[in-house]
Amino acid sequence: MKKVLLASTILAFSAGVAAAEMSLSGSANMGVKYTDDPAAADELRVHYEVDFTISGSGETDGGLSFGASLELDDTQSARSINDSEVFVSGAFGTLTVGDIDPATDGFGIADIGFDGIGVDDDAESLKAAASDGQDVHYAYSFGDFGFILSADSTDTDDMAVAVTYAGSSFDVGLGWATFAGEDTISVDAGATFGDFSVNAIFSDWTGGASAYGVDVSYALGATTITAAFGDTDIAGDDEDFGIGASYDLGGGAKLAGGVGQVDGNTVADFGITMSF
Amino acid sequence: MKKVLLASTILAFSAGVAAAEMSLSGSANMGVKYTDDPAAADELRVHYEVDFTISGSGETDGGLSFGASLELDDTQSARSINDSEVFVSGAFGTLTVGDIDPATDGFGIADIGFDGIGVDDDAESLKAAASDGQDVHYAYSFGDFGFILSADSTDTDDMAVAVTYAGSSFDVGLGWATFAGEDTISVDAGATFGDFSVNAIFSDWTGGASAYGVDVSYALGATTITAAFGDTDIAGDDEDFGIGASYDLGGGAKLAGGVGQVDGNTVADFGITMSF
Amino acid sequence: MKKVLLASTILAFSAGVAAAEMSLSGSANMGVKYTDDPAAADELRVHYEVDFTISGSGETDGGLSFGASLELDDTQSARSINDSEVFVSGAFGTLTVGDIDPATDGFGIADIGFDGIGVDDDAESLKAAASDGQDVHYAYSFGDFGFILSADSTDTDDMAVAVTYAGSSFDVGLGWATFAGEDTISVDAGATFGDFSVNAIFSDWTGGASAYGVDVSYALGATTITAAFGDTDIAGDDEDFGIGASYDLGGGAKLAGGVGQVDGNTVADFGITMSF
Repeated sequence: MKKVLLASTILAFSAGVAAAEMSLSGSANMGVKYTDDPAAADELRVHYEVDFTISGSGETDGGLSFGASLELDDTQSARSINDSEVFVSGAFGTLTVGDIDPATDGFGIADIGFDGIGVDDDAESLKAAASDGQDVHYAYSFGDFGFILSADSTDTDDMAVAVTYAGSSFDVGLGWATFAGEDTISVDAGATFGDFSVNAIFSDWTGGASAYGVDVSYALGATTITAAFGDTDIAGDDEDFGIGASYDLGGGAKLAGGVGQVDGNTVADFGITMSF
Repeated sequence: MKKVLLASTILAFSAGVAAAEMSLSGSANMGVKYTDDPAAADELRVHYEVDFTISGSGETDGGLSFGASLELDDTQSARSINDSEVFVSGAFGTLTVGDIDPATDGFGIADIGFDGIGVDDDAESLKAAASDGQDVHYAYSFGDFGFILSADSTDTDDMAVAVTYAGSSFDVGLGWATFAGEDTISVDAGATFGDFSVNAIFSDWTGGASAYGVDVSYALGATTITAAFGDTDIAGDDEDFGIGASYDLGGGAKLAGGVGQVDGNTVADFGITMSF
Repeated sequence: MKKVLLASTILAFSAGVAAAEMSLSGSANMGVKYTDDPAAADELRVHYEVDFTISGSGETDGGLSFGASLELDDTQSARSINDSEVFVSGAFGTLTVGDIDPATDGFGIADIGFDGIGVDDDAESLKAAASDGQDVHYAYSFGDFGFILSADSTDTDDMAVAVTYAGSSFDVGLGWATFAGEDTISVDAGATFGDFSVNAIFSDWTGGASAYGVDVSYALGATTITAAFGDTDIAGDDEDFGIGASYDLGGGAKLAGGVGQVDGNTVADFGITMSF
């Protein structure tokens, strides 16, 4: 087996993928989070998170790409090895197996803040029909169009499909997910007008609920201001909304924060995000 | 003890100890596995596995090699940090301590398939006298001969020894393992004749059982066809046998599959293996 | 939130954020440890340990350093992901959040041996006022002076402060730590005279105890001989003392061992340490 030394890994990696190679990537954040929820342990608390990914990748003589990855996460309260994936990719598309998300997982609106105050949670709560445990994922793209299928190999009644179009200033997706006998149809759309962009999602679940949300962003140099709104038509569920800003510090770091109303509580966060 | 803060760690690292280095390596697989065992949850199921190794290594001024490694494994149902080892190597041989295998662990026959249908399990079941928990390993080679000793430092009655010879077209090993008062003598041999190769193992356990197996492989360009047979003389234990093929896709990837009879069930698998 | 598939991650990564990078570092040891404690499972036992660190770091356009790290440790009986940290560093100092140690953690005396026989444990037992769970750390240095503050954001009564001076041949630190209503004042000092160096610590805890210790080292080429003494004034607590030597093999490896009296038992260890 090949064992690439670190120094050579970095050299080889920037030179480009020639044979099988390993690499590291990751993200982290640190900051403070606020909630006025009287049930919370602390109104104001320090938050940090470290998410590192170890990846292996290669290319066969016939030009197929292949690879595998796993994540090492410390989300403060839980430390784990997770999100393992193995993939093969070629002209036929990309087949991924592992601990993966449903086909409609890419649908949704922006969250607000450095870590996220959860303003998008309601709006995205029905898009996957409460599905989890999908372990097979297939993606194929043709021009600006994409097709994604995900399934749970241990329960073939649980699956999801998404068809997407992404143009230069407009993208739209149509998704269907089924889980435990109930289905969800979702529509996801986004558009960019100069410095403004907008995204929206609408999901209709046969279990008897709808969810919807929208975000609007305005980019002003290195600063992006985002407002978001999300809700369901479930009785007693509060409207969630918030506004925040993100400032690109360069080199992979951003300063971000936001404030909003989520599940009836005033929540806010402020901190720094890093990507490596 | 002092704890060095991250900032200084990075400085120290870029200033760099010349010889000592860290590296990543790994393997993964994805595919499908079949069994007709009525007790299995699924006849046909998706399988994937990610095994990454992080290693550190260096060389002393006097020419001794040293190093350490640990593995991050996701075998679908279990995610773990394991197989940690620390070694020192020189003219005296290689001394390894850690979570290691008995001296006779290298003995055995080929399994069939991309992940393995387990056709070799019976044949290899007695070679280490049911030993586990060996934590000290010493290996010394002189020309084509090798000597391996492993022991459990917490229970010095549990140990294993192997003597091996590996020529250009013939290799043979003689092993002895003792655990919980019972001993196993094992013989392992292999030979290559042109495009054919054959391996066999025989183990005799004083607990009152013998195990044996053989595999035959034929290499035809990038394709290797392998048949294997294994059994014990334990009453009621079924003969295990299977046949499979492996096709080298290049770049570290192989397509492999096989079918056989293991523990009285028809089992098969088909998938892709990757090494990074 | 969107989840980027592996294939796109790799593309994004090779497109490359210029400043942000990932790296590996680590340490390991292997050897034998002895105790005459009749309550111990084994008088003589094999010890090994693997501690690897994965780090990400970068620099903003404005010159701020930032980064994150986590450790993968196998300490023989326990394997874990731990010591996660995220930091931002600039002219204002270094702010670190994560699973970190109190400000006074750098205070202390040398331990004896390759892994440590624990001769320093008594002397260092009160320096942090029994504190744990500190998750915010701030360090600022001006010339030869340093200031460190650590706090537990979930219990703001638990904190520690250290002020340090490190000259060319003399260093001294004054620390204060408070935990569960009790305080500790600590003084830590060290000096170098030619080939000799000496370190001492004294801690006074309002809970009604004092702890103190001293070590003396003599460097003779690649060999360093160290003797250490530590004790508390707690009734029934034995004096701890020991002597050991360390030999630098080069390349990041050292041979080290020592013998002493700790908690009334004769203890010793001998082995090799590695840093990568």
